[in-house]
Amino acid sequence: MQKIAVLTSGGDAPGMNAGVRAVVRTAIYHGLEVVGIRRGYAGLLDGDIKPMPIESVGDIIQRGGTCLYTARCLEFLTEDGQRRGYERLKELGVEGLIVFGGDGSFRGAQKLHHLGIKTIGVPSTIDNDIGACDANIGFDTAVQTAIEAIDKIRDTATSHERTYVIEVMGRSAGHIALAAGLAGGAESVLVPEVPYRLEDVVAKLQRGVARGKKHSIIIVAEGAGSGAEVGRYIEQHTGYDTRVTVLGHVQRGGAPSAADRVLASRLGAHAVELALKGMSGHMAATHHGELTSVPFDEVFRAERKPSRAVYELADILSI
Amino acid sequence: MQKIAVLTSGGDAPGMNAGVRAVVRTAIYHGLEVVGIRRGYAGLLDGDIKPMPIESVGDIIQRGGTCLYTARCLEFLTEDGQRRGYERLKELGVEGLIVFGGDGSFRGAQKLHHLGIKTIGVPSTIDNDIGACDANIGFDTAVQTAIEAIDKIRDTATSHERTYVIEVMGRSAGHIALAAGLAGGAESVLVPEVPYRLEDVVAKLQRGVARGKKHSIIIVAEGAGSGAEVGRYIEQHTGYDTRVTVLGHVQRGGAPSAADRVLASRLGAHAVELALKGMSGHMAATHHGELTSVPFDEVFRAERKPSRAVYELADILSI
Amino acid sequence: MQKIAVLTSGGDAPGMNAGVRAVVRTAIYHGLEVVGIRRGYAGLLDGDIKPMPIESVGDIIQRGGTCLYTARCLEFLTEDGQRRGYERLKELGVEGLIVFGGDGSFRGAQKLHHLGIKTIGVPSTIDNDIGACDANIGFDTAVQTAIEAIDKIRDTATSHERTYVIEVMGRSAGHIALAAGLAGGAESVLVPEVPYRLEDVVAKLQRGVARGKKHSIIIVAEGAGSGAEVGRYIEQHTGYDTRVTVLGHVQRGGAPSAADRVLASRLGAHAVELALKGMSGHMAATHHGELTSVPFDEVFRAERKPSRAVYELADILSI
Amino acid sequence: MQKIAVLTSGGDAPGMNAGVRAVVRTAIYHGLEVVGIRRGYAGLLDGDIKPMPIESVGDIIQRGGTCLYTARCLEFLTEDGQRRGYERLKELGVEGLIVFGGDGSFRGAQKLHHLGIKTIGVPSTIDNDIGACDANIGFDTAVQTAIEAIDKIRDTATSHERTYVIEVMGRSAGHIALAAGLAGGAESVLVPEVPYRLEDVVAKLQRGVARGKKHSIIIVAEGAGSGAEVGRYIEQHTGYDTRVTVLGHVQRGGAPSAADRVLASRLGAHAVELALKGMSGHMAATHHGELTSVPFDEVFRAERKPSRAVYELADILSI
Repeated sequence: MQKIAVLTSGGDAPGMNAGVRAVVRTAIYHGLEVVGIRRGYAGLLDGDIKPMPIESVGDIIQRGGTCLYTARCLEFLTEDGQRRGYERLKELGVEGLIVFGGDGSFRGAQKLHHLGIKTIGVPSTIDNDIGACDANIGFDTAVQTAIEAIDKIRDTATSHERTYVIEVMGRSAGHIALAAGLAGGAESVLVPEVPYRLEDVVAKLQRGVARGKKHSIIIVAEGAGSGAEVGRYIEQHTGYDTRVTVLGHVQRGGAPSAADRVLASRLGAHAVELALKGMSGHMAATHHGELTSVPFDEVFRAERKPSRAVYELADILSI
Repeated sequence: MQKIAVLTSGGDAPGMNAGVRAVVRTAIYHGLEVVGIRRGYAGLLDGDIKPMPIESVGDIIQRGGTCLYTARCLEFLTEDGQRRGYERLKELGVEGLIVFGGDGSFRGAQKLHHLGIKTIGVPSTIDNDIGACDANIGFDTAVQTAIEAIDKIRDTATSHERTYVIEVMGRSAGHIALAAGLAGGAESVLVPEVPYRLEDVVAKLQRGVARGKKHSIIIVAEGAGSGAEVGRYIEQHTGYDTRVTVLGHVQRGGAPSAADRVLASRLGAHAVELALKGMSGHMAATHHGELTSVPFDEVFRAERKPSRAVYELADILSI
Repeated sequence: MQKIAVLTSGGDAPGMNAGVRAVVRTAIYHGLEVVGIRRGYAGLLDGDIKPMPIESVGDIIQRGGTCLYTARCLEFLTEDGQRRGYERLKELGVEGLIVFGGDGSFRGAQKLHHLGIKTIGVPSTIDNDIGACDANIGFDTAVQTAIEAIDKIRDTATSHERTYVIEVMGRSAGHIALAAGLAGGAESVLVPEVPYRLEDVVAKLQRGVARGKKHSIIIVAEGAGSGAEVGRYIEQHTGYDTRVTVLGHVQRGGAPSAADRVLASRLGAHAVELALKGMSGHMAATHHGELTSVPFDEVFRAERKPSRAVYELADILSI
Repeated sequence: MQKIAVLTSGGDAPGMNAGVRAVVRTAIYHGLEVVGIRRGYAGLLDGDIKPMPIESVGDIIQRGGTCLYTARCLEFLTEDGQRRGYERLKELGVEGLIVFGGDGSFRGAQKLHHLGIKTIGVPSTIDNDIGACDANIGFDTAVQTAIEAIDKIRDTATSHERTYVIEVMGRSAGHIALAAGLAGGAESVLVPEVPYRLEDVVAKLQRGVARGKKHSIIIVAEGAGSGAEVGRYIEQHTGYDTRVTVLGHVQRGGAPSAADRVLASRLGAHAVELALKGMSGHMAATHHGELTSVPFDEVFRAERKPSRAVYELADILSI
C-alpha cells in the first residue's frame, strides 16, 4: 500500500480533527502518501480531494468540527454513485480509505470495501450509538458541554424557586441525556429508549417540593420529546414557574475533551495500521480499553443502549 | 450608623455574590454589623433575615447566582407592604439597606428611602439596561457565556453548510445580543430597539452565499422575536438547512467574569461608604471608570440604548 | 447495618463531592443513617463528625475539592491511633465506612477492616496510580485542566518561535503527563516510568526546527524532573527562546468533568451496596466498564503503568 | 488612499485576530486593498507580506494569538532599518499602516509616520500598561485566565490547610496581578508599583490563621518578585505548607473574551477610519467609552498605574 485517503462523514463530532491528524501522521510515519477528501462522499464524487502533507494537520488537534468538512450525499447511496466513487479512488491510486463517521458512513465504506478498496471506519458521533466498542469519538465532549450548561442553570436555579427543562441532543439515543442527567444531578431524565409518563415526572417534582426542594432540573433527549412541550406540561400541571433551554448545536462544537483526543489519536493511528496489515471492511475500535477491530457487519448488528442500572442510579441519586 | 442590611432582588446576575461579599466585609471593616435578607423584599416581609459575620461570605466571590436568593414580591408593591418592610427594619435596628438589583428593585428601595431608611442601590442585571452608569453587574458574564456558545456553534457550522439562529436573553434590551453578535462574528443581529425586516436578513444571507459564504449565524434577542420563528422564516424563504438554539437561563449562571467581580467588589464597597456618609436614595455606580453615585430619580429617567455605531459596525464586519 | 460513615483522605480529587453525594443518597435510599467525618482520619480521631442528611449533599455534585475536607494524619499510622479510630466508630454506632482516597488512605481503611469495621475504598486520585480498576476519580478532570492550559500556550506559541516547557503533576506516576502530552500534541513527554535523555529531547527539537517547525511543547511530569531545569537545559543547548510553566495545584481543582462525576456517582453508590452486602476490606471499582470490587491486598499489589504503546504513539504523532 | 497594510508586533495579545479582522473588513468596505505583514517589522524588512482578501480573516475572531505572527526585530530599531521598511511600503504602494502592539511597536510606527507613511497604532498588550486610553486589547482575557486558575486552586485550597502563591505576568506593571487578586479574593497582592515587605505578608497570613482562616492565596506579579522565592520565605517564616504555581504563558493564550473582541473590533475599524481621514502618528483608543485618537507622543508620556484605591480595596476585602 502506498497511498491512502481519509474523509469525515455524517454529523461532525469533536475529536474528528485529532483523528485525521493521527491518520495523516501515522501514514506518513509508515511511508504512505495521504490525500484528504472534503465533504465526505460528496467530495469523493466531486473530486474535492487534496494532498495532506504532515503540516496540513498541524495545530488542529484542539479544534472542534472537522477540517475536512462533512456533508450528506444522496448520490453515494446509489450503486452508480458508489461505483463512481470507487473509480475516482482507483484513478488517484488510492488503495486504502479511512472513514470517520457513524452507521451511515460505515455503510458507504462497506460498499467501497466490497468494490475492492481497503476501508477502515472510525466510530465518531456525539450520539454514542455505534455499538461493538467502548466509546465513540465526540460523546465525551458533548456530555461535558451539556453539563457545563446544566451547571450554569443550576447557579441561577438555586437563586430562584423554579423548574428548568433542558433539551439535549439524541434523536434515537439517550446516551447524552443520561450521562448529562446523572453528572448534572437532574431530577428526571427522559430518553427515547425508556418509556415514561409525564405524570410521573410531575409527581416526582411535587414530592421534591413537598420535601423542601427549591428547584428542579429535567433533562429531555430530543428523541424523547420536545423540551418546550415538556415544560408546558409541567407548568400546566403544577403551576410551577418553568423555563426551557434547547442546547442545540452547541453540543456539536467546542474543543474536544482530552479523552476524545486520546481516543481519536489512538483510533486514527490504529486504523492506518489495520489498513497496512491488509484489513478491510472493519471498524477500528477500543474494547475493554484495548485496540481491536470489528467487521462492519457486526457493527451494524450491534446496538448500544443506555445502561438501565445507570438510569436507575440517576433516579435514586436525585431523590 | 451601626447596623446595615443587604438583599438581592429581581433576576439574579453573576457577580451578586461578589458584591454581597464586598458589602459585608467593608461594613465589618468600618465596625458595622450586617444582616442578610433572603429572597429580596419577600424575605424582608417574612423575616427571613440572618446575621452575616465575615466568614458567611467566604468562598462565594466566584459563585454564580446569589447566596441571599431572590424572588418577586407582589406585596411589597403596595404601600402597606412597604410600611411593614420599613417597620421590620426599624425593629431590627437596621439603619441602612444595600439593594442589588435593577429598576424594579430600586423602586422598592426608593420607597424605603422615603420612609426613612438609608438605601443605596447597586445596578445588577445581565440585561445591562440600567442607565446613568458605565455598566451593570452580570452583563459582562452573560455576554461571555453567549459567545462561548456561539464559538461552539461556529465550530460545527464550519463543518457543514448551514444557517444557525441563536436566541439570547433580553426582553426589552438588545445589549447582550449586540455585544454577543459583534464578538461572535454573527451575520445579523436582531434587537428590540432597532426595527428590522426578515426580508433584509434573508437578502444578506443570500448575498453571503452568492459570495461563497458557507455558513451564517443570526443572533436574536428574545425581545426582538422568537428564534424558532426566525429560523422557520429563513428556512422557508431560502431553503437553507437552518438550526435554532435557545440559550435561555444558561446566560444567567456561571462563575462571574473577572470584570464583573471587580465591578461588584468596587460597587459593593462603595455602597457601604455612601451609606456611612449619610447618603440615601442613590445608586452606587461607576462613571467613566470612577466611583460615583446617582439619585434613583435620575436612574429611573435614564435610558441605556445599544450604540447605533456598534450596531452598524457589527453589520459591516460581517459582510 | 444501620449507620455508615464516609470520609475523604489524602490529596483531594475532583469528583470526591459527587462520590460523597452518591454515598449519602444511596445510603438514605436504603434506609441507613450517614455521618460525615471531616479531614480524613484526623477528623475521626478528633471527633470532627457530623450527621449527613439528604440536603447536606445538595448542590455539591459540580464542586471541586471535597466538602468533607482532607488532611494527613500521622497518628493514624500507629496501631494506637487505629484502635482509637475503631473505638470512636463503635461509640457512634457506625458499622460501615466508605473511604475516598488513594493507596495510603486504603491502608488505613484496611486496618479498620481488620479491627472489625466494614470498610470499602473508592479510588480517588488525580495521579491515576491506583491499579486493579479502569480509572481513578479525578484523573480525567486533571488531564482536561492540563490540556486547557496547553491549548492556551499553543495559541501564543503559534504566534512566536519558541519552546515551551510545561510541568504537570505526577510525583511517581506519568499518567497525567502522558495523556496531556498526547491530547495536547506535545513534541516530547517526560515521565518518571520511562528513562529519558535530555540530549534526545534536544535532538528531536532540532530536527523539528530543521524541518520547519516554529514552536514546540515539552511536557514534564514533576516526578521526571523540574520544568525549570529542563527549560534551562534546552535553552543552553539550543539557544532557543524557552519558557516554563508550572501548572501546580491548578490541576487539583475545578469542577469535575462529566466522566469523573459519572464514575464517582457509580462508585459511591456501589460502595454502599457492597457494604450492605456485608463486604469489607475491598475497593469499589469499575473493570471493563462494569462495577466490581477488589480486595485491598490485591489493590496494593497492582501497579498501573502508563501504556508503552500510548507513549510511543505520542512520539510518532508529534513528528 | 488605496492600499493599507496591517501588522502585529511585540508580545501577542488575545484579541489581535479580532482587531486584524476588523481592519481588513472595514478597509474592504471602504474600497481599500489590504496586505498583511507577517512577524511584525521583521516581516516588513523580509518582505513577508501577503494580500488579505475578505475571506483571509474568516473564522479568526475567536482565536487567541495572531494569524500575522509577531517577532522582535533589532534591525528596525536602526535608522537604516526604518528607512528600508519605509521603502518597502512605498514599493508596494502602501499608504497607510495599522500597527497592533504596545509601546515599542508604536515607537517603530512613529518612525514610519515621520518618514511619510500614515500610521495608526492599536493598543494591544495583556500588561495593560499603555496609558491615555480606557483599556488595552488582551488585558481582560489575561485576567480572566488568571482568575480561572485561582478559582481552581481555591477549590483544592478549601480542602486542605495551606498557603498558595500564584505568580502572574507583569514585568513592570501590576495590572493583571491587582485585578486577578481582587477578583480572585487573594489575601495579598504584590505588584511592582507598590513597595511591600514580606514580613507584612506573613503577618497578615498569621492574623488570618489566628482568626480561623484555613487557607490563603497570595498573588505575585513577576515584576514584584519570584513566586518561588515568596513561597520559600513564607514557608520558612511560618512553617505553613506552601505551594507555588507559575501561570506563565497560559495567560497569553486562549480565546479572547467578549470584551476584548468588542474592543478590538471597534479599535481596528476606527484605526482604518482615522487613516482614511488622513490622520497619522496616532493611536486609536477608547476614552470614557467613546472612540478617539491620541498622538503617539502623548501616549509615550502617559503612564497607567494600578489604582491605589483598588489596591487598598483588595486588602480590605480579604481581611
